[in-house]
Amino acid sequence: MEVLKRLELLRNEMKKAHIDMYIIPTDDFHLSEYVGEYFKCREYVSGFTGSAGIMAVTEHRAGLWTDGRYFLQAEQQLAGTGIELFRMGMDDVPGMDEYVEQHLKKGMTLGFDGRCMAASVGCGYSELVERCGNTEDGHLIYQTDLVGEIWNGRPSISREKAFVLNMEYAGESYESKLAKVRNDMEEKGADLCFLTALDEIAWLLNIRGNDVKCNPVLLSYLIVSKEGTVLYCFEESITEIRDYLEGLGIDIRDYFSVYDEIREFGRKRRVLTDTNKVNYTLYMSLVKSNAEILDYNTPVYFLKAVKNKTEVENERQAHLKDAIAYIRFLYWFKTHLGKQYMDELTVAERLLQERKKMEHFIEESFDSIVAYGEHGAIVHYSASEDTKYEIHPSSFVLIDTGAHYLEGTTDITRTLVCGTLTERQKKHYTAVLKGNLNLGGTRFLYGVNGLNLDVLARQPLWEMGLDYNHGTGHGVGYLLNVHEGPNAFRWRISEGKKRVPKLEEGMITSNEPGVYLKDEYGIRLENMVVCRRSEDYDTNPFGHFMEFETLTLVPFEREAIVAEDLTGRERELLNDYHTRVYKTVSPYLNREEQEFLKRYTEPL
Amino acid sequence: MEVLKRLELLRNEMKKAHIDMYIIPTDDFHLSEYVGEYFKCREYVSGFTGSAGIMAVTEHRAGLWTDGRYFLQAEQQLAGTGIELFRMGMDDVPGMDEYVEQHLKKGMTLGFDGRCMAASVGCGYSELVERCGNTEDGHLIYQTDLVGEIWNGRPSISREKAFVLNMEYAGESYESKLAKVRNDMEEKGADLCFLTALDEIAWLLNIRGNDVKCNPVLLSYLIVSKEGTVLYCFEESITEIRDYLEGLGIDIRDYFSVYDEIREFGRKRRVLTDTNKVNYTLYMSLVKSNAEILDYNTPVYFLKAVKNKTEVENERQAHLKDAIAYIRFLYWFKTHLGKQYMDELTVAERLLQERKKMEHFIEESFDSIVAYGEHGAIVHYSASEDTKYEIHPSSFVLIDTGAHYLEGTTDITRTLVCGTLTERQKKHYTAVLKGNLNLGGTRFLYGVNGLNLDVLARQPLWEMGLDYNHGTGHGVGYLLNVHEGPNAFRWRISEGKKRVPKLEEGMITSNEPGVYLKDEYGIRLENMVVCRRSEDYDTNPFGHFMEFETLTLVPFEREAIVAEDLTGRERELLNDYHTRVYKTVSPYLNREEQEFLKRYTEPL
Repeated sequence: MEVLKRLELLRNEMKKAHIDMYIIPTDDFHLSEYVGEYFKCREYVSGFTGSAGIMAVTEHRAGLWTDGRYFLQAEQQLAGTGIELFRMGMDDVPGMDEYVEQHLKKGMTLGFDGRCMAASVGCGYSELVERCGNTEDGHLIYQTDLVGEIWNGRPSISREKAFVLNMEYAGESYESKLAKVRNDMEEKGADLCFLTALDEIAWLLNIRGNDVKCNPVLLSYLIVSKEGTVLYCFEESITEIRDYLEGLGIDIRDYFSVYDEIREFGRKRRVLTDTNKVNYTLYMSLVKSNAEILDYNTPVYFLKAVKNKTEVENERQAHLKDAIAYIRFLYWFKTHLGKQYMDELTVAERLLQERKKMEHFIEESFDSIVAYGEHGAIVHYSASEDTKYEIHPSSFVLIDTGAHYLEGTTDITRTLVCGTLTERQKKHYTAVLKGNLNLGGTRFLYGVNGLNLDVLARQPLWEMGLDYNHGTGHGVGYLLNVHEGPNAFRWRISEGKKRVPKLEEGMITSNEPGVYLKDEYGIRLENMVVCRRSEDYDTNPFGHFMEFETLTLVPFEREAIVAEDLTGRERELLNDYHTRVYKTVSPYLNREEQEFLKRYTEPL
Repeated sequence: MEVLKRLELLRNEMKKAHIDMYIIPTDDFHLSEYVGEYFKCREYVSGFTGSAGIMAVTEHRAGLWTDGRYFLQAEQQLAGTGIELFRMGMDDVPGMDEYVEQHLKKGMTLGFDGRCMAASVGCGYSELVERCGNTEDGHLIYQTDLVGEIWNGRPSISREKAFVLNMEYAGESYESKLAKVRNDMEEKGADLCFLTALDEIAWLLNIRGNDVKCNPVLLSYLIVSKEGTVLYCFEESITEIRDYLEGLGIDIRDYFSVYDEIREFGRKRRVLTDTNKVNYTLYMSLVKSNAEILDYNTPVYFLKAVKNKTEVENERQAHLKDAIAYIRFLYWFKTHLGKQYMDELTVAERLLQERKKMEHFIEESFDSIVAYGEHGAIVHYSASEDTKYEIHPSSFVLIDTGAHYLEGTTDITRTLVCGTLTERQKKHYTAVLKGNLNLGGTRFLYGVNGLNLDVLARQPLWEMGLDYNHGTGHGVGYLLNVHEGPNAFRWRISEGKKRVPKLEEGMITSNEPGVYLKDEYGIRLENMVVCRRSEDYDTNPFGHFMEFETLTLVPFEREAIVAEDLTGRERELLNDYHTRVYKTVSPYLNREEQEFLKRYTEPL
């Protein structure tokens, strides 16, 4: 068995390196949400293909930690490997840290590849090693990629071609953005700003790439100083944008040389970087070069979240395209359901095909979720050939998908009616819809943030004793990561870097309440909304009022709505939305699709 | 003119003491919301009788800062005194700090009575003096009460008799409370806990007093250590409770001796105290004795906010009494309006008389607000013989009042209809009512706090482009201060000590949205609500649900409600509330009052 062999080889390498326990995380060098094939070390060693998980290997034991989404899959894939499965969040299951602390005896050495671990996490292990009595140097080895040593046929690291995002899409020049970054650096007294998050670099340089699945970014690091900007990337990635970059005066160096050069750059200087986004190896290089680390969210993190006028207008176009594709898919789905074979994978594929027909489509913005019946109750369900359900004309199918276009990023969830619903199913659908409408339709004073508004989406569910165990909304990038901070709708208060900021004009956030009934069905209704000033922003004596514009333009399921459960205002919000959807999208549809949409969006 | 004479005498004293600028705050030694006659130094010197204001006097100038509530009154009362009025919050008006910084030249000495200033504020002045180049000792003189030197016939400091709050009212023994305080001290590593807030001392000792208007507390300080508890108070205050206190093993010392003894107590020890609540003189004594000050909210601050079962049950009784009195008043008001002379003062008096008839009534819990017509738009309006309006049969009268009973504290606002209303007035009343009903009627998950819920009260107003410039709700003490922390309903996020905590079972908070139209009218509707667990708290698989029980039992104005603006749920909440009001209160009313209440509470 492949995995047993690999574990044996790994243990040999551990012995050679005098490492007693080796940790294999799932991250890439940039702590990206998705990682390229090159980085799938944990998958290579364990055979477990889930997107989340972390391994710890000792001479005689091996453990893998993953979350509820993957318990079943991990059980199957780990069977016979001897790797113990630790089900995270279950009672009596020790966490990874606890396990490491228990098994790392005095004198033992812990190892991991520090490039694949956030500095903040690496520091945690470093402290843990000290607590275990291993205070001498050498008891933590982080500059080691043992899996790399044993991985035959490892895919090469991605070096896909990057492209320039023209001003008609970016809306603001690199120079203008750079001035704002430097301004923030000056305020914080930083000599350097070290950017390692790939979306932050792409945003600042107005470039996009294709090195990370679903995230149109390129593998790179960026150092901004008063003197200039240095980009570390692969030569092959930038063949087509080298002139552009050089024209901006950017100093281009090899991707891997950052590990040496950061020591020189950092020497005795004040370096602004985010220890949740810079990897441990780079962080330790800075520490050793006597840099003073200013550990903040980077300026780009905030700047990027506030979309400029061009980006917002483009996002409207992206959502129009997405709606055209979606409604064509919907027409097909509703007219063919029960008449031809469909399953979770074929439905996802059909929707993707419709999107691909749209101009400037780039890729999906995340792995699509098409979850039929009880699968809908699994929040992060991902269908595979093994798990997929056929779709029958009953219950709901929950479809959470999104796309990248040159004009921006979409993220939409609709829960489609597949057949006759029970009264309870309708009640639940209506409650989720009420939450979506109330949040999307609210007006609020400038200064308010997502913590203040979350309740608007939850209240109809809370009234019924229901809740959903996820945030109501996350920030969405512009042709970048579909999940980005700092804006969010949620109610739990976090401090420090995870603080939810006030809602600014141009922030784009998802609005996605849901309800999940284990072994029955799940309902989630997700629109993207952009924050804007109300018409009376400057004139209202009671204050500066803000509101949301819903970008998503796909109708809800009239037949799933209990009309008498809607308030007058909710009904108005729904009808206005449907009218807008029809007016905006129908000109791009054929006669049959138009008639279909007309019926779909009739006033309630 | 009296004031000119007093200023001259004060300046003489300043010269003698070598003080160039003297600050006269409005606070007592405990930074209480209300202060006794003895402490009214600023009023004595300036002639201005408002409850908020602070003075700065130099050889040639004198300035007084106060807020919008008092601009008119201060103008009138300061006329001819030469004291400049600084209207706080107005454009181009320098703040007190700014003024001090401008006028305190190098070498000058600033003085104030540090006992009447919070440590945190005093530290601010101390830093300011340093910034002005006065770094040598002696340029800040805070152990000086110059007004005391010139105040002939100063009222003596209050020494009213305190009483014991029996277990049937307090619900938890001193010993039990003390154990919790010591537990918190241990967690924080404190040797001493120094309590200076009068309500915190009264709560811990289960005693009440009568030294501060509207706050049933006694002037005192309390030191809790591992060894024992020391109470500083006036002998006259505790003649009737000395046995009780001694029975608890409390060491009783003279009120003023705390200023000497705190030095000994504090010497090189870790002292937990709140620099917003301890005065500057005491704080400096601690600093000079090399105490390490642990500056937190005191444990009592949190413990006191969570009412025990006895307190909650008593509060229900207090609100029943208050409702009986209120509804009798309401019957009189509605049947006599337009038939006999009424003004803001006589109406307030009538309501007070009804309350006084109730058993265990103690006093008003704050200065009553009865504000007719346009006066209602002034949020903190306080009627006087000079400003009072006659009440005519038109528009609204806003009545915000409260009482202390042995069974607890009430705080209620109703806006009564005096005559035919315009459609706009009704719309506004209805929007405020919707906010009150939605907040009071919500269910929410345990962990949620007042920042998350505030929007429920504001949203109906925000939708109409209206807002109110105050929090939606404040904590209320049990037979203690009507305004207490830390619980609150508001949307602006504060950090540190002012953080709003999650809502705990037993917390009592006001629910008081409003709308204020300058020069027209004001509407505020205030109930007190207690947080409790929902019936399904332990059984609901979606989480632990909480809810509010509305304590206040006084009907709203049916004739001011636009029924079609209410949602089905709002109408249900209103009708359920009115049914409960009638059922609970009517048995205590006479026939006519019962019939009156019946009509008032008919379903809508």
